[in-house]
Amino acid sequence: MPSEDPSMESPFAYEGLDRVIHERARLGILTSLATRKKGVSFGDLKQLCNLTDGNLNRHLKVLEEEKMVQVIKTTAGNRPQTICRITPAGRARFMEYLTTLEKVVKDAAALMEGKSTPEGLKALLPQKS
Amino acid sequence: MPSEDPSMESPFAYEGLDRVIHERARLGILTSLATRKKGVSFGDLKQLCNLTDGNLNRHLKVLEEEKMVQVIKTTAGNRPQTICRITPAGRARFMEYLTTLEKVVKDAAALMEGKSTPEGLKALLPQKS
Repeated sequence: MPSEDPSMESPFAYEGLDRVIHERARLGILTSLATRKKGVSFGDLKQLCNLTDGNLNRHLKVLEEEKMVQVIKTTAGNRPQTICRITPAGRARFMEYLTTLEKVVKDAAALMEGKSTPEGLKALLPQKS
Repeated sequence: MPSEDPSMESPFAYEGLDRVIHERARLGILTSLATRKKGVSFGDLKQLCNLTDGNLNRHLKVLEEEKMVQVIKTTAGNRPQTICRITPAGRARFMEYLTTLEKVVKDAAALMEGKSTPEGLKALLPQKS
């Protein structure tokens, strides 16, 4: 009977690549926020990630719904300001994602250099020339 | 006048994360194919990436349109077989993507450990407490 562990059967399924984080713009937003506990203003974040107001708002909404990011309305002097912050849960989830991403890079680099073949591939593919 | 180099202004925009490749399923497909010059059968590829027929077909179509992958109808004995192969151009584009992905992992890991702050971030963000 074949193993029921999907990582053995499907070594390239990359289930650990959390789709909420993997999206390019959100990956940039989270990397920006991960470094600043006090948060980053909406304007700075927009510039750091090269996003429009609309796109940044849309992606922040996804991250807020996942409780990965907090968006706080405040004032700087007399001007209203929006501050975006990563939550502790968001940070933990992001670090988990990074572990998988690191694995993907290592796998792919090793494969491209012909240094190794993942067990799964060797075992699964028919032994033809 | 501000610099016109977007990588200086927007260090977290990650423009190099080619959307064609970055999609999780396609990342798995390309990693599977990169290691086998002779190609992988549709059935094996489906299993390696844990995809349904429909999903694998859909993603292969995207990769074919981008000329990154070839899908070849052939026969194994008397049975029809579909073989999927990465093209030389596809391989080159995939390697370029991997370089950027490696950079993302390194940036993020350094940031999370507080080891470094990208120049762009330091220069751009207001110097508040």
